[in-house]
Amino acid sequence: MKTLRVRAKSNSYNVIEGRGSWRALGTLDRAQYTTVFVLTEKGIWEKWGGAFERATRWKDLRTIIVPSGETSKSMRSAERVAGSLLAQGADRRSLLIAFGGGVIGDLGGFVASTYMRGIDYVQVPTTVVAQVDSAIGGKTAVNVGAMKNLVGTFAPPRLVLADPSVLATLDERTFRSGLYEVIKHAVISGLSLFRRLEEDLDKLVPSNARNIGPVLAQAAQVKVNVVSRDEREAGLRRVLNLGHTFGHALEEITHYRRFLHGEAVAWGMLAVTTLAARAGLIKPAEALRIKTLIFRVGKLPPIRDLRVEKVMALLLRDKKSVGGRIHWVLPERIGRIKISADISFEDAANAFREVQQTRLS
Amino acid sequence: MKTLRVRAKSNSYNVIEGRGSWRALGTLDRAQYTTVFVLTEKGIWEKWGGAFERATRWKDLRTIIVPSGETSKSMRSAERVAGSLLAQGADRRSLLIAFGGGVIGDLGGFVASTYMRGIDYVQVPTTVVAQVDSAIGGKTAVNVGAMKNLVGTFAPPRLVLADPSVLATLDERTFRSGLYEVIKHAVISGLSLFRRLEEDLDKLVPSNARNIGPVLAQAAQVKVNVVSRDEREAGLRRVLNLGHTFGHALEEITHYRRFLHGEAVAWGMLAVTTLAARAGLIKPAEALRIKTLIFRVGKLPPIRDLRVEKVMALLLRDKKSVGGRIHWVLPERIGRIKISADISFEDAANAFREVQQTRLS
Repeated sequence: MKTLRVRAKSNSYNVIEGRGSWRALGTLDRAQYTTVFVLTEKGIWEKWGGAFERATRWKDLRTIIVPSGETSKSMRSAERVAGSLLAQGADRRSLLIAFGGGVIGDLGGFVASTYMRGIDYVQVPTTVVAQVDSAIGGKTAVNVGAMKNLVGTFAPPRLVLADPSVLATLDERTFRSGLYEVIKHAVISGLSLFRRLEEDLDKLVPSNARNIGPVLAQAAQVKVNVVSRDEREAGLRRVLNLGHTFGHALEEITHYRRFLHGEAVAWGMLAVTTLAARAGLIKPAEALRIKTLIFRVGKLPPIRDLRVEKVMALLLRDKKSVGGRIHWVLPERIGRIKISADISFEDAANAFREVQQTRLS
Repeated sequence: MKTLRVRAKSNSYNVIEGRGSWRALGTLDRAQYTTVFVLTEKGIWEKWGGAFERATRWKDLRTIIVPSGETSKSMRSAERVAGSLLAQGADRRSLLIAFGGGVIGDLGGFVASTYMRGIDYVQVPTTVVAQVDSAIGGKTAVNVGAMKNLVGTFAPPRLVLADPSVLATLDERTFRSGLYEVIKHAVISGLSLFRRLEEDLDKLVPSNARNIGPVLAQAAQVKVNVVSRDEREAGLRRVLNLGHTFGHALEEITHYRRFLHGEAVAWGMLAVTTLAARAGLIKPAEALRIKTLIFRVGKLPPIRDLRVEKVMALLLRDKKSVGGRIHWVLPERIGRIKISADISFEDAANAFREVQQTRLS
């Protein structure tokens, strides 16, 4: 187990990564809460709810189940969860535990931060991407229409408990999708994590979940460092959006049906790495090294049929676009990211076209 | 014009009360915002939109209209407004102006504080209650089902501009409803405002709107003082809930159809003043003085037909109830409020029964 500390302006909290971390729920004083709720999905709670209750020894957890999948990340869903909390007697001193992947974490954080204008919550991430990324940092959100994360809050959790054992029951594709975010953190942070991934990538599989805590903790540390220095995404935090500008557009254009989030981000990283290479910002060999690691993770859903004009049109509506200008997040080398608004629309489109033509193994 | 300063931990801002205050929108730098939106209702914007645009001299305001009434204070409505902002190109550096009464202010604040995780907003209150109370303090909210303000945020506006001239077109009942909140502030703050109301109550009418700025500014000052010392309702701010415990229950039990908010609060203040008198916390003469001023404002919708058991059951679900205990906000004298959890359920019910029996003129 490894304890990472997020030092946010609004609140500091611990991220506990590794086997057995669920027990650390006990670092919170149960007596300060009137009631404790678990927001989760049926499948994951059936598999792991019992183990969680045994590990934490907190009795009388009340569960609120939402359907699995991105559609639960909506205002309507947030309203239902708030109504359910009320019906079950949640008050200002209740605690909400978000037990699941990114959808549960984002939804749970949003509801907790707005229910009666804010109650405490704990993140218990159960996917790779949630353990190294989305559960850390206090960004909460729901989607509006096709627009991802349009409505949300900055609200730090009280605690994040990431036990990799739970990843053993993930399907292969969901697991792999999370590895792209681990790679993202490696590209942001530098060769230490990147080389480790190059060496150990084949060991990062569900059947080996119990043993991969250390590499996930190292990836989580990247997120912890960034958000501790920039809680509100004023500047530094934007490096975390590597691959997300194109990624969000790809998800939206396919109505969130074709790609898992990490897969869309993988294509997005390939596109901006290509863009950086074409602009002469990154050496060709370095760009190739990044792309090679991404491709090694596995096969990605195709993008060749998507119309580049449509993809580009969506980019302008991204939250990261300000006053009609896109702030591009580009790799200069492994471990150094540049934010640039000086990229022409045409150059970006051409980079995307080049990636579309890439022949996958 | 009078400038009041709210010193909140998260942000400080000016509340500008009095004729001509709309012009002070110019104290914000228009150039820092990409686009400026006005959230409003059709009726009020048709009457006062032109005057607002002339006063502020800000061109190209984009309006978003929501239906009038409490039903607009919903998650669905918040979602629609967010969607509308997106469709019209709002980004992280857009500004939202909430131009209307309490519903518009609460909804606008909620949307602004969550749209792309928070954009700047300005309150331009157009009712008495909004000018002296709800637009100040940064509490935003929407209702969920019948539960008022269940979901919301603490998010200070950048500026509050309260021009009393706009009150001239309010209907008499809405205007009077706001006066109950002015009385609430007098009971909280002391004899200076209370005596002024006793003397000038008859002059507080829509046709005299242009001249009542000073008394409204004095009432607004009470709210400013309280929230500057307690932004998050940890303690002191709870005095502002005087009359609201019963008030919310009365609104809920009548499905928000019988009472305007201030009217329900008026009954609530009558009930807790009675409760305080029965408990020996306030002198009978002082209690009578409070009740007399409330009754002088005008006729209130009846409560005699409401079942006291139902009203009491709703009280327990109030946000101010923690762990099943109601924290009562009680007047000890004009200018002194006591928060007490040591009131029996039966005493509260009996006080309500007594008020139900009150014969109004």
